[in-house]
Amino acid sequence: MSFNTYGHIFRVTTWGESHGPAIGATVDGCPPGVPVSETDLQVWLDRRKPGQSKFTTQRREADAVEILSGVFEGVTTGTPIQLLIRNTDQRSKDYGDIAEKFRPGHADITYWQKYGVRDYRGGGRSSARETASRVAAGGVARAALASLLPGLGITGYMVGMGENEIDRARFDRGEIGRNPFWCPDPVAAQDWEGYLDGLRKSGSSVGATIEVAIAGCPPGLGAPVYAKIDTDLAAAMMSINAVKGVEIGEGMAAGRLTGEANADEISMGPNGPTYASNHAGGILGGITTGQDITVRFAVKPTSSILTPRKTITKAGASTEIVTKGRHDPCVGIRAVPVAEAMAAAVILDHLLLDRAQTGGKRGKIG
Amino acid sequence: MSFNTYGHIFRVTTWGESHGPAIGATVDGCPPGVPVSETDLQVWLDRRKPGQSKFTTQRREADAVEILSGVFEGVTTGTPIQLLIRNTDQRSKDYGDIAEKFRPGHADITYWQKYGVRDYRGGGRSSARETASRVAAGGVARAALASLLPGLGITGYMVGMGENEIDRARFDRGEIGRNPFWCPDPVAAQDWEGYLDGLRKSGSSVGATIEVAIAGCPPGLGAPVYAKIDTDLAAAMMSINAVKGVEIGEGMAAGRLTGEANADEISMGPNGPTYASNHAGGILGGITTGQDITVRFAVKPTSSILTPRKTITKAGASTEIVTKGRHDPCVGIRAVPVAEAMAAAVILDHLLLDRAQTGGKRGKIG
Amino acid sequence: MSFNTYGHIFRVTTWGESHGPAIGATVDGCPPGVPVSETDLQVWLDRRKPGQSKFTTQRREADAVEILSGVFEGVTTGTPIQLLIRNTDQRSKDYGDIAEKFRPGHADITYWQKYGVRDYRGGGRSSARETASRVAAGGVARAALASLLPGLGITGYMVGMGENEIDRARFDRGEIGRNPFWCPDPVAAQDWEGYLDGLRKSGSSVGATIEVAIAGCPPGLGAPVYAKIDTDLAAAMMSINAVKGVEIGEGMAAGRLTGEANADEISMGPNGPTYASNHAGGILGGITTGQDITVRFAVKPTSSILTPRKTITKAGASTEIVTKGRHDPCVGIRAVPVAEAMAAAVILDHLLLDRAQTGGKRGKIG
Amino acid sequence: MSFNTYGHIFRVTTWGESHGPAIGATVDGCPPGVPVSETDLQVWLDRRKPGQSKFTTQRREADAVEILSGVFEGVTTGTPIQLLIRNTDQRSKDYGDIAEKFRPGHADITYWQKYGVRDYRGGGRSSARETASRVAAGGVARAALASLLPGLGITGYMVGMGENEIDRARFDRGEIGRNPFWCPDPVAAQDWEGYLDGLRKSGSSVGATIEVAIAGCPPGLGAPVYAKIDTDLAAAMMSINAVKGVEIGEGMAAGRLTGEANADEISMGPNGPTYASNHAGGILGGITTGQDITVRFAVKPTSSILTPRKTITKAGASTEIVTKGRHDPCVGIRAVPVAEAMAAAVILDHLLLDRAQTGGKRGKIG
Repeated sequence: MSFNTYGHIFRVTTWGESHGPAIGATVDGCPPGVPVSETDLQVWLDRRKPGQSKFTTQRREADAVEILSGVFEGVTTGTPIQLLIRNTDQRSKDYGDIAEKFRPGHADITYWQKYGVRDYRGGGRSSARETASRVAAGGVARAALASLLPGLGITGYMVGMGENEIDRARFDRGEIGRNPFWCPDPVAAQDWEGYLDGLRKSGSSVGATIEVAIAGCPPGLGAPVYAKIDTDLAAAMMSINAVKGVEIGEGMAAGRLTGEANADEISMGPNGPTYASNHAGGILGGITTGQDITVRFAVKPTSSILTPRKTITKAGASTEIVTKGRHDPCVGIRAVPVAEAMAAAVILDHLLLDRAQTGGKRGKIG
Repeated sequence: MSFNTYGHIFRVTTWGESHGPAIGATVDGCPPGVPVSETDLQVWLDRRKPGQSKFTTQRREADAVEILSGVFEGVTTGTPIQLLIRNTDQRSKDYGDIAEKFRPGHADITYWQKYGVRDYRGGGRSSARETASRVAAGGVARAALASLLPGLGITGYMVGMGENEIDRARFDRGEIGRNPFWCPDPVAAQDWEGYLDGLRKSGSSVGATIEVAIAGCPPGLGAPVYAKIDTDLAAAMMSINAVKGVEIGEGMAAGRLTGEANADEISMGPNGPTYASNHAGGILGGITTGQDITVRFAVKPTSSILTPRKTITKAGASTEIVTKGRHDPCVGIRAVPVAEAMAAAVILDHLLLDRAQTGGKRGKIG
Repeated sequence: MSFNTYGHIFRVTTWGESHGPAIGATVDGCPPGVPVSETDLQVWLDRRKPGQSKFTTQRREADAVEILSGVFEGVTTGTPIQLLIRNTDQRSKDYGDIAEKFRPGHADITYWQKYGVRDYRGGGRSSARETASRVAAGGVARAALASLLPGLGITGYMVGMGENEIDRARFDRGEIGRNPFWCPDPVAAQDWEGYLDGLRKSGSSVGATIEVAIAGCPPGLGAPVYAKIDTDLAAAMMSINAVKGVEIGEGMAAGRLTGEANADEISMGPNGPTYASNHAGGILGGITTGQDITVRFAVKPTSSILTPRKTITKAGASTEIVTKGRHDPCVGIRAVPVAEAMAAAVILDHLLLDRAQTGGKRGKIG
Repeated sequence: MSFNTYGHIFRVTTWGESHGPAIGATVDGCPPGVPVSETDLQVWLDRRKPGQSKFTTQRREADAVEILSGVFEGVTTGTPIQLLIRNTDQRSKDYGDIAEKFRPGHADITYWQKYGVRDYRGGGRSSARETASRVAAGGVARAALASLLPGLGITGYMVGMGENEIDRARFDRGEIGRNPFWCPDPVAAQDWEGYLDGLRKSGSSVGATIEVAIAGCPPGLGAPVYAKIDTDLAAAMMSINAVKGVEIGEGMAAGRLTGEANADEISMGPNGPTYASNHAGGILGGITTGQDITVRFAVKPTSSILTPRKTITKAGASTEIVTKGRHDPCVGIRAVPVAEAMAAAVILDHLLLDRAQTGGKRGKIG
């Protein structure tokens, strides 16, 4: 990973600021011959698009993606795919106050300290807007995976909002797309609606916990040490704005288990090894087992809130700040499609990396 | 990061299996003129060395590091530093049973599926032995940091063992080196001794939670998107064997906070900005604030236990396995110096990366 | 270097095909605070632009560059700079014949064999059009170098066209911009005009030899083994379309010299070491000496010619091909500004890389 | 490529100085299951070993390679392979004079300027001794290629020594191994013996031109722009000590040809396309054609000669230097096996890279 690039073989470089003319992603290393169109990518972008419910920023962006290169007659050519998304609703006047003051809990101050220059109109690269580029690039990864791993399914959903958590006994995959929170628990989804509306009206914000489940991934992707697939998944999720923790399988709870409790016992099924449980989250020693991969991460609450917070100005004077722009009361909602996109990019990248080293051959069992 | 390398500028490639003749690290990109000796590095290796208490594997390894290149007349030359550690106590006979059976919760099965060949004697690259190489390389990073960032302090410690947690009110930095668990809470340290001894005698194992605090890091290291310093710290920790979750600052708890609770209010101190709290863990938008950086991670329990677990053989037959080798009842203990080493490597790497791009200049406040 | 990216710290990824909607470059790792504008970049693009004399392709491209990101209020922000150049004169009908036939000496056949899909309308990524993106990115590198190394001068010129060579005794730097060939020898420039016009009228083409001289580069850039600055310069030049050979200093002639003839004797000048000659081309052991760096490379003749050549079709049938499109009789002419751009990128990248590792400190002499 | 690493997937990092305890190579990314032993690698090292004739340095090195990791029960495991070669005949006393004086034409001065510290005993990393590590790593690449591309043949030979060139009409592959110069022309080989003996006795040195021919490489390796296989071959050869120019196919002569002369006409053979000539050197647009790949490079004469040359001391005083150590009168001789090793590494790396992106599928012709 360099400054703005992720991936080893399937490499994505995102570019663009929230208040410049456009944002986008340069996607290199995609296999040739993959069918993909702007319409295919738009499906994913529409899921992340702001302004779809009262729970995401009211900024109105079409988020229409254009493919400028790398696709010819409907299929990828194996050369760089340039994905461009124009910024259409920038309304810079909203951001006047934050040009001189640093928002607590936001990258404003560190950005300034590092670069000595920043596009104060909307957080520059720190804006959640950057993630639209990732969703577009993830759409390309999905298209390639559809050719290479037809059975793969990547599903993100919210498992916690603030202090509230879903009840896993009520987990219903079909529910995920039916509420504005990507919540798989219909009861929780309903509760959260009132909860978040209250926070929204008071100008507050709240964090969230997201999970991504990847089904149908074959065993053998990853490597034992630094190209562990969980290392790359952790890096991918931690690179999303506002993420402060990442877990694989049991995650932080693994520190509380005994060896007996943690061992996923193995037996032989008709199509290879099967496991009695999945504490490992589908990854052992950095390499996929063939079970579902589960990644979970926490998104902190948006720092842009209406309650005054103490801060300083660029000139070093003490002051308070109230952020009046159009912001997300729970930015974690939009993190769901972003995390799916990152997961798709990591899986594709590791599939290609494994194909490079092993040619896709596998050690036989049985 | 490639398969076995971490870092952008300060790049470490570890090599070697637990039961081969030697392990080591190839360290590239170190600044020239840094004073460093084998004795300096040995200090750190001795902290991780197994067999120092009854709570780590009884394998006896001198873990003596040799510098084969890159240091001349006591200082680094700017060329690759080869660090070699011989394996002296391999006792392969201990591992007879695991040649044919896969340990549940261990990389045995995925390693085999991926490569179709594996050094069954001791887990190959999946062995915790690999981390000795990281500690040696981290020692080089520490030496360079001592020249470049004299005030920096990196301290790792255990904050939880199984279901037990420290009481932060009793946090005593001086206690950390006085007990076999790197535990900063003297009461907990005493409790854990009996607890772990019980587990050890019963042939069980347990997970742990480790924290690393980095004090004295200047603001401005990192970048907004994929070279976020928290991304690299997360990847560094997740790449350590048996780690299943990583947190920065509030970590997973950030998902439960409101924007008001999470905002670290800023005021102007005599030497620049100061913060009323540190929910951010010293990192905002991927860039250091100058506050203490706090990283936390969970280590799962060793899968090598005496209780029989169901598994299969390479031939696909159902069986049970009991692992009798010399293993750690709480492998998290040895993860503490490893995590410090990884933190040192990441901070040095980002210091060099920042120096490359900005020349170390900073945006002025006040 | 990945598929479409060059550079270690200052990383450029070009994208786009000759007959798609646009081409461009994603520039990552540029230092912040560098003054740069579209007008600044346009200067360099205009030097490469086709259709400026009868000796370059008559394709009419405005080659107007747009900066879509990474520049705010006239200076770079340290984040990715997206440079976009629209294709305005694609005239695909010119390319009908080459959709089915492979041009000998062109990438048509290998492109097809590798990817199984290709944008036959204009060579896709193999088109010299790709180099406009490099020139734009090189303009950014030049802007950064103007801040960091004010005395640096990068000058490209043609030293040979076909069998004709310049007379170095007549070398006149001022002449370079006064003829359509970037030729520093006024007599040769005049001769070549008639020579190339003849070739052009007969639908033929010819190769060329280009030299780039870099003056004012400090000593100490580069590294002894694989980050040798000559390695990166060689790779940079060899990556330009149609280049088949690269030389540093004496180049291939170094193989014919004795040790006595090749040694550049050293004496002590008022500002440090000076050299009696420059067989080394300003680079010793991969590291700059402070003398002028000289790189030379050969560009093969365009394969698109009017004389029929034997070839095959995609169906494997024998045929002949005549390429009637608008092509350059001497594509080497346009390689001059491209090579300057690549040289600028390499020097900036190594300046940043050196700053990362050594902090710009130098071993003292005297 | 980072400082001391080459390759994308098959990545080699060499380490070690000429006068330290050992040198070696860390090889990452090798496919698993490749049969390889120390004996296999020694074959290649013995070809490069100094002191085999009076025409190479009389330093006596066993150059015995040890495999410390990554190979188990005779096959590669897919994990890093550490290759270690001890330095046994260092005789540092030979180097007294050059501790204070800089040899003209040698990296002494730039190394010092860059790092401010250098192992003056033998050139440190600039010593040709570093290339033994490359030969060992190249042996691993050859072993992998023997599995993956059984028909591949890589042959290096000397085509020029000083002003003398071979007569291609007398080219005899069988002759290459029968003379100390790897010369394919038996008449030239005999002439060169007397010529070089004269130079050797007078304490002089001379440059050389080397060619490597790669037969049996399939079409489709490489990529159109920066991962052009010729770019990587050029970088690989230019990274070898003392190399000043690199050519592919026609090389620098391509600049003197017309389009008609340069076009390799294509016809359809029983096994796919065949070419009437090979001006391209087996590479079109950065991608292999399936023809023989030919790379040529020039090695400058050793700067260590007995004739006094003007230079300066570290203190900046004018002086003369005579280098009395054990040096090669024609260091190009030992460059032959080194270049073969580099070629093997590049071909394997591109084979893996292509397998990653395309899965080895090819566009059909006929």
